[in-house]
Amino acid sequence: MDFVFSDKMAKMKGSAIREIFKLAGDPNVISLAGGNPAPELFPNKELAKIASELLVNEPVLSLQYGVTEGYAPLRELTKERLAKKEGISSPDDDILITTGGQQGIELIAKCILNEGDTVIVEEPSFIGALNAFRSFNAHLAGIPLEDDGIDPQILEKTILENKNAKILYIIPTFQNPAGTTTSLEKRMAIYDICAKHGVLIIEDNPYGELRFDGEHVATIKSMDKEGIVAYCGSFSKIIAPGLRVGFCCAPKALIGKMTVAKQIGDVHTSMLPQLLVYEFQKRYDLDSYIQKNRDLYRHKCHLMLDTIDSCFPESVSHTRPQGGLFVWCDMGEGYDTSLIAKECVKKNVVFVPGSTFMVDMDKPCHYFRLNYSTMSDEKIIKGVEILGSTLKEIVKK
Amino acid sequence: MDFVFSDKMAKMKGSAIREIFKLAGDPNVISLAGGNPAPELFPNKELAKIASELLVNEPVLSLQYGVTEGYAPLRELTKERLAKKEGISSPDDDILITTGGQQGIELIAKCILNEGDTVIVEEPSFIGALNAFRSFNAHLAGIPLEDDGIDPQILEKTILENKNAKILYIIPTFQNPAGTTTSLEKRMAIYDICAKHGVLIIEDNPYGELRFDGEHVATIKSMDKEGIVAYCGSFSKIIAPGLRVGFCCAPKALIGKMTVAKQIGDVHTSMLPQLLVYEFQKRYDLDSYIQKNRDLYRHKCHLMLDTIDSCFPESVSHTRPQGGLFVWCDMGEGYDTSLIAKECVKKNVVFVPGSTFMVDMDKPCHYFRLNYSTMSDEKIIKGVEILGSTLKEIVKK
Repeated sequence: MDFVFSDKMAKMKGSAIREIFKLAGDPNVISLAGGNPAPELFPNKELAKIASELLVNEPVLSLQYGVTEGYAPLRELTKERLAKKEGISSPDDDILITTGGQQGIELIAKCILNEGDTVIVEEPSFIGALNAFRSFNAHLAGIPLEDDGIDPQILEKTILENKNAKILYIIPTFQNPAGTTTSLEKRMAIYDICAKHGVLIIEDNPYGELRFDGEHVATIKSMDKEGIVAYCGSFSKIIAPGLRVGFCCAPKALIGKMTVAKQIGDVHTSMLPQLLVYEFQKRYDLDSYIQKNRDLYRHKCHLMLDTIDSCFPESVSHTRPQGGLFVWCDMGEGYDTSLIAKECVKKNVVFVPGSTFMVDMDKPCHYFRLNYSTMSDEKIIKGVEILGSTLKEIVKK
Repeated sequence: MDFVFSDKMAKMKGSAIREIFKLAGDPNVISLAGGNPAPELFPNKELAKIASELLVNEPVLSLQYGVTEGYAPLRELTKERLAKKEGISSPDDDILITTGGQQGIELIAKCILNEGDTVIVEEPSFIGALNAFRSFNAHLAGIPLEDDGIDPQILEKTILENKNAKILYIIPTFQNPAGTTTSLEKRMAIYDICAKHGVLIIEDNPYGELRFDGEHVATIKSMDKEGIVAYCGSFSKIIAPGLRVGFCCAPKALIGKMTVAKQIGDVHTSMLPQLLVYEFQKRYDLDSYIQKNRDLYRHKCHLMLDTIDSCFPESVSHTRPQGGLFVWCDMGEGYDTSLIAKECVKKNVVFVPGSTFMVDMDKPCHYFRLNYSTMSDEKIIKGVEILGSTLKEIVKK
């Protein structure tokens, strides 16, 4: 049978990143491509103890159907943590446990978007979110991302110029892929503009707790007097991603509709992973565990930046992240980093070309993304050195 | 902010069943409403041992990001089991691990349906599937379900009379809610008609392994020479539902597109539950575990049928399932079982009125569904007795 796919899905292809990830599974390959957290810190022994106890003592809780909203004590604990860490505490909000942070974005897209509606995004942005919007046939309008976030004036112009601009999707803290953090002033201006025009903000903050330099900046959700912000969070980068446990904190009406969509999608998030995330926080000190991750990522990030500074051609600029997992590099006009990525694959070094993160993925792009969280120190140095010498040859020409 | 929801989601409400389930949590309530498997047989101690070992010895495998397609050894094992148990073994098919069987249905709907396309369904049918199709603004065309399945002639007429009839959704074995099994003859006729008209069949078979009486009937997927059948299965009813591990076996082109949609939806199914489902099958005898479930359900089903036969008014007819979890009762024209359900709630007995499973949920319906898998023997007897005396009063009037 020749399948005719729906208009919204017909053009969708798998993430180019995930194809590169398949290469990255080869132990001979130095992968600066992934977005995986460092596995050496996973609290696997603590989780083993909890899992065993729960399955023996709480068989019904851990193995029977649960409610779509998520395990109630985990929702409560997440609410408390958001209040304490991020100043997010509106009585008009509710929390939905999601199967990873990604599911929250997809559920909002399904609940809000008709085909042809506009979603405004930072450019570059997270491909998982861009594809979620594309998969409902949304029109994407990109705003160039600056070192301190998107320009609020361009945001307002984009809202006015695009038909049915319903959502602004933004990663204000340690952006993926750029590693940048939006300034407090811009966050406030962005919030005001979206409130004025009735645009829903999706604030995606999977990396917010991974700050290793600089000062905390208030989340946009903490400013949300009008109830226009849906805040997507995740335990993937602070406990473990394979568990697939995330959450969305948003106004009750939106959470209610998302809960209906989730019931249709996967009924509820797997119970055992939810219970592991809850019990780990109750029995151990999540903050001190996160601190170990921060220390590791600070070390790895600084190592990568130092190596870049000594190996890359001077004409290649890059961001200096204060947290998160990524460095964003710019070769300047006239280069196509997808060709360079192919060149580097032959030398067993992989990274992600910038076009992956753009609204128009087919246009040549002079940016590329590097990740420092997964590889050993030796491989970070060696990978950046190989990349640097390749770039020098290309820039010379 | 007043949220304006997408056209496809605006009218969607939570499943009425799940509201009834909330009542069912009260220990004073006798719930014949749920669809939960019997928790007393969950292999929790075996799973505890496996979980503990995996988390200690395989931290990266169990906690790092996995691939969207699912854990490769579990896909392979599922393929082998399908070949052995169901004669499903086309080289043109592939397997996607899903977050419960429900996700497979939702992914197919997203990949295939444009708004307004027709999905043909048995009437009554599983509300989770009906809602998945509704949530993409599909038009539902119902075909009355007979004791041996839908009438193939009506199926062909329905395909011809409805615009863009793209999918037939069918639960041929131990149907939810009706408990009926489609005959081999009708399965063959249904397959031929769908092949002739290029209609994709979703064969949903979560209960197929729970046969406790009668003889096995070949799956429609086992007849699938043309590659028109997507077979959705689940480990929910044969290991444990809270794990949320299911699968879809379908032609490679469809699985490829579903994989893209799943990557956008939840990246991948949680690793630990996938590993538990795989290792349980490798280390223990799944078939003998399923046999225990069959024996339990045979006992409970016969107990319920015997009690119904002695307590219900003669004018109320019912199905005699040979497997699965449900009995479907018919009061005959002129009754509205949603009113009777409300009456019974006052007497602490809950069941699901038939309207829940119909294309038009607002029309009065003279059917209702009873479940026998969850309650103790005493509660099954007491619940059916209370329900019987209530029905006798109503029928008398």
